[in-house]
Amino acid sequence: MTKQIKLGAFLPGGGQHIAAWRHPHQPADGATSFEFHKQLAQTAERGLFDAYFLADGLAAPAAGGTEGGSAKVAGFEPLTLFSALAPLTKNIGFIATASTTYEEPYNLARKFASLDLISGGRAGWNVVTTATDAAAHNFNLDTQHPHEYRYQRAAEHVDVVKKLWDSFEDDAFVRDKTSGVFFDAAKVHATHHRGKFFKVKGPLNVPRSPQGQPVIVQAGQSESGRALAAATAEVIFTSHQHLHTAQAFYRDIKSRAKAVGRNPDHVLIMPGVAPFVGRTEEEAQEKYRQITSLIVESDGIALLNGLAGGAINLAEYDPDGPLPPLPVTEGMKSRPELIRQIADENNFTIRELYQWVATARGHFTIVGSAEQVADTLQTWFENDAADGFNILPPWLPGGLDDFIELVLPILQQRGLFRTAYEGRTLRENLGLPFAENRHTALHRAKVA
Amino acid sequence: MTKQIKLGAFLPGGGQHIAAWRHPHQPADGATSFEFHKQLAQTAERGLFDAYFLADGLAAPAAGGTEGGSAKVAGFEPLTLFSALAPLTKNIGFIATASTTYEEPYNLARKFASLDLISGGRAGWNVVTTATDAAAHNFNLDTQHPHEYRYQRAAEHVDVVKKLWDSFEDDAFVRDKTSGVFFDAAKVHATHHRGKFFKVKGPLNVPRSPQGQPVIVQAGQSESGRALAAATAEVIFTSHQHLHTAQAFYRDIKSRAKAVGRNPDHVLIMPGVAPFVGRTEEEAQEKYRQITSLIVESDGIALLNGLAGGAINLAEYDPDGPLPPLPVTEGMKSRPELIRQIADENNFTIRELYQWVATARGHFTIVGSAEQVADTLQTWFENDAADGFNILPPWLPGGLDDFIELVLPILQQRGLFRTAYEGRTLRENLGLPFAENRHTALHRAKVA
Repeated sequence: MTKQIKLGAFLPGGGQHIAAWRHPHQPADGATSFEFHKQLAQTAERGLFDAYFLADGLAAPAAGGTEGGSAKVAGFEPLTLFSALAPLTKNIGFIATASTTYEEPYNLARKFASLDLISGGRAGWNVVTTATDAAAHNFNLDTQHPHEYRYQRAAEHVDVVKKLWDSFEDDAFVRDKTSGVFFDAAKVHATHHRGKFFKVKGPLNVPRSPQGQPVIVQAGQSESGRALAAATAEVIFTSHQHLHTAQAFYRDIKSRAKAVGRNPDHVLIMPGVAPFVGRTEEEAQEKYRQITSLIVESDGIALLNGLAGGAINLAEYDPDGPLPPLPVTEGMKSRPELIRQIADENNFTIRELYQWVATARGHFTIVGSAEQVADTLQTWFENDAADGFNILPPWLPGGLDDFIELVLPILQQRGLFRTAYEGRTLRENLGLPFAENRHTALHRAKVA
Repeated sequence: MTKQIKLGAFLPGGGQHIAAWRHPHQPADGATSFEFHKQLAQTAERGLFDAYFLADGLAAPAAGGTEGGSAKVAGFEPLTLFSALAPLTKNIGFIATASTTYEEPYNLARKFASLDLISGGRAGWNVVTTATDAAAHNFNLDTQHPHEYRYQRAAEHVDVVKKLWDSFEDDAFVRDKTSGVFFDAAKVHATHHRGKFFKVKGPLNVPRSPQGQPVIVQAGQSESGRALAAATAEVIFTSHQHLHTAQAFYRDIKSRAKAVGRNPDHVLIMPGVAPFVGRTEEEAQEKYRQITSLIVESDGIALLNGLAGGAINLAEYDPDGPLPPLPVTEGMKSRPELIRQIADENNFTIRELYQWVATARGHFTIVGSAEQVADTLQTWFENDAADGFNILPPWLPGGLDDFIELVLPILQQRGLFRTAYEGRTLRENLGLPFAENRHTALHRAKVA
């Protein structure tokens, strides 16, 4: 079977575009409606998406507290939401974002293992270090930890979680009612981790799922982010405006993965794409203009302030003037660089910049006919820029429906996308191998 | 309407009795079967129980690691499990246990608020401090924090969580597409908590549910546990062997609640009851003998070791001899006292003791005909010993089915138990008031 495009769907109930909630065909209360999230999950599953993906933050967005315009001010916590959606679906995976900085490995390992078990092996963990002082203020800190500290902790955290997930070998449970032996104690493994950040004895009290372990997902773009992703991620969510930068990133990550002894085919690179799709290009442009016209200026500025790292207030600058130099913070490195790059390349004013990033915070935005969108995805996929894409529909459900109804049939006709799920677990659908238990593997190696 | 008995159901998929998994009518893999938990939730809802209740621990039970007999060695994490069960049910509440010692308030507040929203206002939080060194070893500690430290932290933790739950007033969301105003910033409240254990700025990024806030549940029996419960709990899970001790506890908690300015009717006392129910007393006795015969001795000893606080190994004593003095630890205070009391009152050997506590770790065990069980519950309910009961069926689903089919119709005939749910939220069914937002209340008070 030829390699095909993998697809994730970013479906926050409030929509992706900052003005999505004002769109005539988006429910204004979508962010906090469970029924709406259920509809989105079932729609994405009908569309044969590999996974439903949710970002997360550990603070109400700054704009939220003061301006009153943000629909992203409140919503569901991803792990509880996905647990609720899992029994209402059969095949689609669930990739939840969770923080290595503000969660303990034992707790996170348990919750993801539990979601993985509930869903029959459809869970993924998007590992984030949670940049922003706003989050730090909710966790006993006056300022956030330095960038390097967060990434060092993240690397150890993921290591501990993956060790904990292998506590029980897959055949550890005997459950022999006659003898009274429930499990084989030789197949239960304490973790005995003692590192710089964590001491975790284990074992975890949740067994493994049909896919072995949840899929590890990351989105680091900085040097430490790339190193972490190449070492541990199986899916990488990334952000590029151009084929050539996407190709450079793709080459870099695949060669880093190879350098640390991993199979590069088991590290899937999936850039974010926010598509405005029409039957014609003009129809797509009209959809773009419509939602752009709904942006509240103060929300647009607040969005840029957030992407810039929170240390500058662009409301103090002329919105029709150029983007001033951005201060370096201990927050995310990639986002300020990205908006700087977009502004410079397009010679955007502050207003033009927020209008552009309003769709998907700087992810690649395509405005075009279904054929044009399909062509672009095909070009990236066939030219070593992407193994798949994370689709960020600008508003919901319309933006998702458009993509499913107009773009997917073209990709399917070209043999580039599945017409039925290959398997029942997220790993099976992504073409990633079953995560063999390390202790089982070790035992097998010794015997052989 | 006359006051009626409230009922919680403790339904761990592996059954309550330590030998439950060996019972011919209990699925051996129940602890890790989502389908089985779904069946249990739907059965309890058909039985009109107020809530599905799950205990929790943050370590694989000690017996688990070494002996191989324990079916409780692994299972689901309660918050993810209950989130998955919520959309598959309509009325039953979900009371999840979670730890104030090993979770951050912002994370717990979010997860419970999210479950509360997903379930339409059916969530409850059983607040625990997680005694045991085994748990401490999974969270960077060599030994657990002292008992007093844990309770002080718990009191502040619950306070922070409840403040966070009131971040958004119920009418904060305007969602006016025309004006672009999504929420009223004057109705969003940062927490600004700075205490001994926590600094949490807030606001939380999850809104309130139809019941306002999740129901607070506690089970503290020690002096500090009772003080915490009287100050904050709305449901108290407790353990008594005798009517008179249950009455003394009931009086004590109600008067403590009154002393801190609370309405004692809004503090429901619900002792645990493990019923073996037969059509006749002899049939019940036979059910008790059957499951008792299935206990593996090493599991029984391990259970006692755990209840004793983990600092004594009773395997080194004659199982047919008396219970030796138990060391005082920094773990739970009430459990060692309880098994001491049961052993002394009944003049039990170690073997007789583990056989007795095997059913429900020392909770009140009733072996009798349906009439006898109903009579006992009625006596406790009508004589100020209980506002309701937490039912701990010894094995599943049979123990739950027996109670629903044989005991509940008698209580219903006597007018002591509902014949239909009173409401859709957990608070409505428990007869607890809607949790009014503190900021709304303050504003109302100022205006009045």
